[in-house]
Parts: sequence; C-alpha cells; structure tokens
Amino acid sequence: MGPHPAVAAIRLAVRRVLHDLLTEHHRAPAAVPHALAHEPSPPPLVLVACSGGADSMALASALAFESPKLGIRAGGVTVDHGLQAGSDLRAAEVVQRLRELGLDPVDSVAVTVGRAGGPEAAARDARYAALDTAAERHGAAAVLLGHTRDDQAETVLLGLARGSGIRSLSGMAAVSGAGGRYRRPFLELDRQTARKACMVQSLPVWDDPHNADPAYTRSRLRHEGLPALEKALGKGVVEALARTAQLSRDDADALDSWAAQAETTVRDAAGQLECAKLYALPPAVRRRVLRRAAIAAGAPAGSLFARHIEEVDRLITGWRGQGAINLPGKVVAQRQGGRLVIRQG
Amino acid sequence: MGPHPAVAAIRLAVRRVLHDLLTEHHRAPAAVPHALAHEPSPPPLVLVACSGGADSMALASALAFESPKLGIRAGGVTVDHGLQAGSDLRAAEVVQRLRELGLDPVDSVAVTVGRAGGPEAAARDARYAALDTAAERHGAAAVLLGHTRDDQAETVLLGLARGSGIRSLSGMAAVSGAGGRYRRPFLELDRQTARKACMVQSLPVWDDPHNADPAYTRSRLRHEGLPALEKALGKGVVEALARTAQLSRDDADALDSWAAQAETTVRDAAGQLECAKLYALPPAVRRRVLRRAAIAAGAPAGSLFARHIEEVDRLITGWRGQGAINLPGKVVAQRQGGRLVIRQG
Repeated sequence: MGPHPAVAAIRLAVRRVLHDLLTEHHRAPAAVPHALAHEPSPPPLVLVACSGGADSMALASALAFESPKLGIRAGGVTVDHGLQAGSDLRAAEVVQRLRELGLDPVDSVAVTVGRAGGPEAAARDARYAALDTAAERHGAAAVLLGHTRDDQAETVLLGLARGSGIRSLSGMAAVSGAGGRYRRPFLELDRQTARKACMVQSLPVWDDPHNADPAYTRSRLRHEGLPALEKALGKGVVEALARTAQLSRDDADALDSWAAQAETTVRDAAGQLECAKLYALPPAVRRRVLRRAAIAAGAPAGSLFARHIEEVDRLITGWRGQGAINLPGKVVAQRQGGRLVIRQG
Repeated sequence: MGPHPAVAAIRLAVRRVLHDLLTEHHRAPAAVPHALAHEPSPPPLVLVACSGGADSMALASALAFESPKLGIRAGGVTVDHGLQAGSDLRAAEVVQRLRELGLDPVDSVAVTVGRAGGPEAAARDARYAALDTAAERHGAAAVLLGHTRDDQAETVLLGLARGSGIRSLSGMAAVSGAGGRYRRPFLELDRQTARKACMVQSLPVWDDPHNADPAYTRSRLRHEGLPALEKALGKGVVEALARTAQLSRDDADALDSWAAQAETTVRDAAGQLECAKLYALPPAVRRRVLRRAAIAAGAPAGSLFARHIEEVDRLITGWRGQGAINLPGKVVAQRQGGRLVIRQG
C-alpha cells in the first residue's frame, strides 16, 4: 500500500524540484581549482525554511523523505521574528521537530523586524535576509519555501489591488532569488493537501495567530475576501488566480524583453529618446520604455507608479506644450525639440 | 451656479465621447457619389441604449443635454428582453421617459432570449443583436452604453475567474463593435455618480430585480464578492480593477501584434510551423502563435482554453514522443519531423 494521496502529492512536488536542482548541479561549471576538478563534488545541501506551520512542516517532511534517495543533504532554518512573546521557545521547538525528521544542519535565526513598508513587508525583508545568510553560511544549493497555490491566489489579489499592471498580477515565482536560490515546490498544491499530509503523518503543526489577525491585509483576504469571491464565482477561483499568475508572468517577461530591445531603437546617436519613434511603439511597449528610462535616470522603481508613467506618456501622445513632469527621486521628464529628456534635476 | 458635480461629471464624460465622434465623422471619407460630395452631410445621429436603470438614464439625460450644442441628433433604444411579466409595459415607460428628455427617434425592440452560453450571455447576445439592427435602421453613428467603472471592475473579476490570461482581464473597451459603433462614456465614472445625477435631476429610475438576484453570478459579485474584497483590500479596489483592465488590454494588444508578426517567421516555405523556431520564441508569444494556428485550422476560439494550448506547447518544450493532441472543432495537433502540424482531422 502506498502513502496517503496527500503525502504522495507533497513528495512528488518536492521530488520534481530536487530533480531540477540535481540537473542544474551537475550542469554547473565546477567552481573549484583545476587540480580538484576531477574529485567528486560533495552532495548538494537543500534547506527548508520552516515556520512550524502546516505548509512548511509538510515541506520539511517531504524533503526529509526524498532527499536521501537522491543523494542530497537536507537541512532546515527557522526564523524567530521576535514579534510575539515566547517566539524563541517556539523556534526552539521547530528546530527540535526538524531534527526529529532527520534534517541536519538545522538553524534557528533571530531577526529584528524594522518598520519599512509596513509590518508584513518588514517581516518579509528580515526573513529573507536571514535565509540568505543561512544559505550562504552552509553553502546551500537552494532554500525551499512552503508557499501553496492558496498563498499564490492571495498574492495575485494583493497585486490586483495595486492596479499597477500585469507584473503585479504575476504572484510568486517557482524559482526566485539570487541564482535561483528560492524554490517553491507547493505553488501548484493547495493548502488543504499540506494540512492533510501533516495530519496523516501525525506531524504537530503550529497555527500562527498572525494568520488569523484581521489587522493584516493578507489575513482578511484569506478569511473573508477570498471565501466571498469563491462564493460568488465558484470553487475554481484559487486555481484561476494561480493560472493567471503564471500567464501574467510570462506575458510581463515577454513585454519587458520587447521594451529592452525597443529602447535601443528609439534613441538617437546622442542617446536621446526620439518622440516620433516612441509614438510609433504600441502603448504597452512605450510605457515600459518610459519606465525603464525613468529608472535609469534615477527614479526608484518602487515609487514609480502607473500614473507617473501615464503623465510622461502624454508628453508623447497628447503633446500640447506641457511643462516638465516631476517624478520620484527628483527625476524630471520634459519634451525638448522632438526629444524626450529624462534626467535627475 | 453650475450644475451639481454629479451632473457635471456625466455631461463631461458624454461631451468627450461626442467630440471624438464628431472628429471621426468629419475625418471619414464621404461615402456618397462624387456629385454630392460638397453638399453638407446630415448631422450624425447618436443613440443611447437605455434599460431605464440609473446608469443608462443618467447617460440619456447627459446625451439629451450635450448633443444639441454640438449639432448632433440624439435618439434612444430600449430592449424588451421578455424575461419578466410586464416587461413590455416597462419598455413603453422607458420610451416615454426618453421622449420626455427630447430624444428622437426612440425605439422599443422586443427580443427573444435563447439559452446558448447561459442566461446572462444569451440575454447579452440578443440585446446587442437588437442594438445593431436599430443602429443600422437609423443609420446611427454610434450607440452609447451606460457601463460604469463598477461594471468594469465586475467584468475584470469575472474574467479573472476564468483564469485564461490577460485578454480576459481587459474588461470592456471604451470603443467596441463593428466600426467602433459602441461607446462607453461612463467607463471611468462610478455607479454612485450616475445614481446621484439621476436623483438631483429628479429622473425616475428602475431597479432591475435581476441585478439583485443571487442566481446571477454578476449579481453575487456585486452584492457580496466585491464588497468583501473591498473590506479586505481597501476602497480603491474598483479603481484598481478598472486600471488593470486598461493596462491588460494594451498588453494583450501588443502581444497579439507580436504573435501575428512572429507567426510569419516561424513557418517554413511550405507554410508549416518549425518546432525549433517556435522553441526560440518567448513562451507568451509562442502560446499565442499556437492559439492563432489552432484557430486558423478551425478550432472555435471560444472553446480553446489555456490548458489546450499548454498541451500543444509541450509538443515543443517537452517533446518526448507524445501522440497527437485533440483540440476542439476536431482539430488535431501533432509533431512530425521537426514540424508542428495542426489541422482538422
């Protein structure tokens, strides 16, 4: 008799990612001195980032099960955000559980969460910085993250609320970070499957009270917004949102590559943007070229909104002698004699 | 003292569209015999499609106010869907109200709603067919539709639920139909403004009970889904969804034009699709080329889903000797000697 379907599903998802990692590992040029080039390289190490919640505990259990069969070393990291009383004890407990699964090394890393960008963004920034450091300290080939299809759907809706275009609809990538360090094996798996896999494996899990705290946008979305949307639109909403993420990501990538190529063709010999050539581009491409030019001139990408780019675009498509447009980062865009000049003022 | 801000807003929105129509009218080549070419062309006629609800009554009132100032004739059409007892009396009442606003001609058109595609789609198809016929009978330059930003937000969410990519996120166009016949002046105006404009002008409006009937997906979305999403994500959701529609539309247009151009470069001298060249395209462009080829081979666009195209795409990106893929419309896609052959079987 095989494992429970939920356990089979989480293992298959992890196995696929480990296969990809091994393929990349063997293809990568050996970063070792020539004399050592023929020595067998040590087995790669894969870490799981684990909060102790169901998603990442399921991920840890699948990693512990699959990695020995593929000659991969498996370890874990838990991040103590220090945001709740007793979070250090909680972290120690997670370390203990990961060790019981057979993972080694297992780290607990305490971080200090700042305030930049709001509580959720600040916690995320601190967490990824800690994971980066742990990965580098151990020379890990990858860090697995337990984000599920439900998390992805929530991320798409959060992006939708920004109304800033398809890049913000593209959710989380299956592979991200420097050198593709972060991998999300559960991105096409639903949260319910992860919970079920923990239950049938008798893995104790921890429910982060923040996940149910209506002070957090994501929590409100999870417990109220998304269920109401499912009630109105049907049960397939989560899957549809996740598929939208993938399609939007590919579309945004293609349009970005077009814009990068187009930017080289709309500059004159002196490197100035020619308005007539910009005008001839499709609006979607032109706006991306303008965005690239504004960022190159020093505008911070995170503060540059769709409405800024629209205003600059009107210098091209709705020219009636407007003055200079002020952009974030003290960048100024103005039309001068058939050229669009964007520079830090 | 000027008009109430809501009335000013609906009039401005209509004035902009009428200006566009006049510009197009004067630019269009005269479709009359040469001998008559210098006679002044008759003033254009613009019809408003009016259900008697607040949005389209507000639209009718603004059209009646603005059109004489621009030398435009204004008429109206109301469609009796015959779905509720007394709908004929209701239609007669709407005709009466439109005439009181000074519109002329005003038609009431009774239609028979079929069943194809579900009740909402069937009613919509019957309605547009009736509006097309009315526009042609009167030689109207345009038909104005009262869709607001809130309708647009709902349409984006309905598209999101299909999960079929950014084209389905692009909502309703400001200009659509044969020759750009349909215009939506209120697409950036919220529903509340239209209601307010009716109220302050003492225009009686009719609330279609279908709009509150939870049997309809759009109604559930309007009364439950969207409010819950606003509660979770903040009041800007409707505006963000509407902006997403516009950005997605431009993006989808640009990618479609890329795919049309790419399709010509990936066919060999015999017109067959070359797998190696398809492989080299960005995934977003390749999938659109495959979709175009499937439709050209006879697959009905409306039955061709993202999962069909993904399966065909795997003949290019994940080739391991798969057999032929069956697509809707008895179209078959298979890989043969480095070529992708898509044809009706």
